[in-house]
Amino acid sequence: MNQVVDDMSQNDYMQKLGQAARQASRRMASATTAEKNKVLAETALAIAGTRESLVIENRKDLDIAAAKGVDGAFLDRLELTNVRIDAMIEGLNQVCALPDPVGEISNLGFQPSGIQVGRMRVPLGVIGIIYESRPNVTIEAASLCLKAGNATILRGGSEAINSNRALADCITAGLQKAELPEMAVQLVNTTDRAAVGQLITMDQYVDVIVPRGGKGLIKRISDQAKIPVIKHLDGICHVYIDDQADKEKALRIAFNAKTNRYGVCNTMETLLVAAGIARSVLPELQKMYVQENVELRGCKRTRAILPDVGEASEDDWHTEYLAPILSIKIVDNLDAAISHINEYGSQHTDAIVTENISSGRRFLREVDSSSVMINASTRFADGFEYGLGAEIGISTGKLHARGPVGLEGLTSQKFIVFGDGQIRE
Amino acid sequence: MNQVVDDMSQNDYMQKLGQAARQASRRMASATTAEKNKVLAETALAIAGTRESLVIENRKDLDIAAAKGVDGAFLDRLELTNVRIDAMIEGLNQVCALPDPVGEISNLGFQPSGIQVGRMRVPLGVIGIIYESRPNVTIEAASLCLKAGNATILRGGSEAINSNRALADCITAGLQKAELPEMAVQLVNTTDRAAVGQLITMDQYVDVIVPRGGKGLIKRISDQAKIPVIKHLDGICHVYIDDQADKEKALRIAFNAKTNRYGVCNTMETLLVAAGIARSVLPELQKMYVQENVELRGCKRTRAILPDVGEASEDDWHTEYLAPILSIKIVDNLDAAISHINEYGSQHTDAIVTENISSGRRFLREVDSSSVMINASTRFADGFEYGLGAEIGISTGKLHARGPVGLEGLTSQKFIVFGDGQIRE
Repeated sequence: MNQVVDDMSQNDYMQKLGQAARQASRRMASATTAEKNKVLAETALAIAGTRESLVIENRKDLDIAAAKGVDGAFLDRLELTNVRIDAMIEGLNQVCALPDPVGEISNLGFQPSGIQVGRMRVPLGVIGIIYESRPNVTIEAASLCLKAGNATILRGGSEAINSNRALADCITAGLQKAELPEMAVQLVNTTDRAAVGQLITMDQYVDVIVPRGGKGLIKRISDQAKIPVIKHLDGICHVYIDDQADKEKALRIAFNAKTNRYGVCNTMETLLVAAGIARSVLPELQKMYVQENVELRGCKRTRAILPDVGEASEDDWHTEYLAPILSIKIVDNLDAAISHINEYGSQHTDAIVTENISSGRRFLREVDSSSVMINASTRFADGFEYGLGAEIGISTGKLHARGPVGLEGLTSQKFIVFGDGQIRE
Repeated sequence: MNQVVDDMSQNDYMQKLGQAARQASRRMASATTAEKNKVLAETALAIAGTRESLVIENRKDLDIAAAKGVDGAFLDRLELTNVRIDAMIEGLNQVCALPDPVGEISNLGFQPSGIQVGRMRVPLGVIGIIYESRPNVTIEAASLCLKAGNATILRGGSEAINSNRALADCITAGLQKAELPEMAVQLVNTTDRAAVGQLITMDQYVDVIVPRGGKGLIKRISDQAKIPVIKHLDGICHVYIDDQADKEKALRIAFNAKTNRYGVCNTMETLLVAAGIARSVLPELQKMYVQENVELRGCKRTRAILPDVGEASEDDWHTEYLAPILSIKIVDNLDAAISHINEYGSQHTDAIVTENISSGRRFLREVDSSSVMINASTRFADGFEYGLGAEIGISTGKLHARGPVGLEGLTSQKFIVFGDGQIRE
């Protein structure tokens, strides 16, 4: 392994990284939109210009991983194909085109004292990104943090260290061309795991941590961090088919929310059906799911209608399958549906299918999830679909940002006051 | 002491409190504005109607504290005078009159897929308030949390337990009259310190902690909490007199920011003066401060102009005096002023006095504090002065809420989606 830092100096190394990031963040906070866009455009050019050496560095990582005997899915995530390199370049250009959130002033109004008070959108400061094997996250995460005016410390998976170094070099080249501090984006240049423990506790230098990866990583980071973490743990999403649903919409949404993609967090895992409409929709839905080889697990009342369906256990209502499996529960009414979702859901994304405006309004208000939908597939819970332009992740936390987190979620607002010499009496 | 819970059942007691709060929070999230206002109005009536017994309960606390030999300032904070009881009643009526932030929908717009995406303001859920000897915080904090649709767990100082119980009974009466769950506002009915440790780690039941009190309390809570904390630690506020300041405004603001009140967080602790204007303003300011018995401590250049001023040490630039003491530093220019503030400040409130629009714009953008002001006294950093109607505290954190935190800071926003059967292709 390319261990550039020995254990003795590990602590010093991370402290220096943090100090440099804090320092760079001050310059980044006042960087103009043009300067930040230049970094992004130049990074894209640098990636395009070093495509061959990126592939060579990535090959080193792939060979080491293959020699360790990792599985095919792991190697796939690790690989930088030409298509993925193109996607990184395209992503940089897209972030370039997004409006700059920094400096936006809102709600500027006069107060009785004569002062004028408003809010200004400002960067968070220093953002620590911790991710696993996908090296393209290096570019995706850094570009969003940078456009929002932040300095970034990137800690990628140790198995991708050569790829990540090569990509970080492209960002450094971009920062140099734009004459912004190189330290605005730093890669933790050691594969030592202890570096992560330090990164998530350096609260004097790091303002927020964004972990990107599997549930294990996110849980470990959240438990140990001394810094706020923007995260989502589970995506146990529900669709509730109300007894006043339009049947055609119900079938389409319930089918799409499960079968559009299985391994993602905004996929429906439990279908709730009002007792009054269950006999009308469930047999048809079963046929549609069976064609896609989706395994169904039902409550007792579901199995009275669909006798060949397996029985759902208490555990099923708590489970994010991330697989072609669906649990189905018949509920008496809207109240029971809302109770079930608030009890078993993960506050990610939940949808109602109904034509009744009062039921829809109650569902919107009373379901305590980061995204709540009427007559649309849960699969829409996504920064691009919501018009954010890009997303760094989906937050199921309640403070600061809920749901898809785009550029705005990487900023906050301070108060600004204009006066003409006013003093407090 | 009125120890109602023994150590063996302490853990169970706190868990039950948390569960009950979570349960109540669901009902509170959908409480109407009229219902919430009824609680506040009825609580005010209950306080007015039990004024005598409140004073009797408070007297118990005062007697116990006096017997322990606490100081006069402590007894003063603990006392519920008639003026303070009136202020609580007036505060309840003010919160009643504030607009309800819950349910507000913003930015509802169509996306290319045909779905309509917006944000809805929603309560945070369960808020834990930890405070010290002032019993009136019981009413102030509970009323704001309640109006924002949250359930609240109150943990007051052990020395105020009798007063707090009597006040909490008034809130319970208000909740009963409005037919909302009594458990929406619960007082931790034990003086055992271990209860605090549990409250700040029950992340399944509590969504945010707001500590109110001295720096020691806030630091201890922040270090140990497993739940996000809305807090401010220090208020090291600066006024920078630019060389293009209007002299009359400069004198007025620099005097007011220091002398209006000494023991509060938005008071100026360090005055920065541009070298070009120092000889013009410092001698006059010195006269004004000396009349108020403010002790001045200056840098070398300051002492060259004001020879009878003491020398400021490195420690002074880091110190929140909360007293009639002021450190003064002469800086070369705006850059040096901004650097000093970002280095030594506490990201609370900082002001520039200048007539130069470019200097003002740079100061606003580059000073990374929760409130940044042009030509106004730092003493305006306050929820009432900012038009928030009330404040639960001032946050110097960067996520979620910066600066004075009112009702809006006790809520967050979720995404809402309206469709007509849209699915993701």
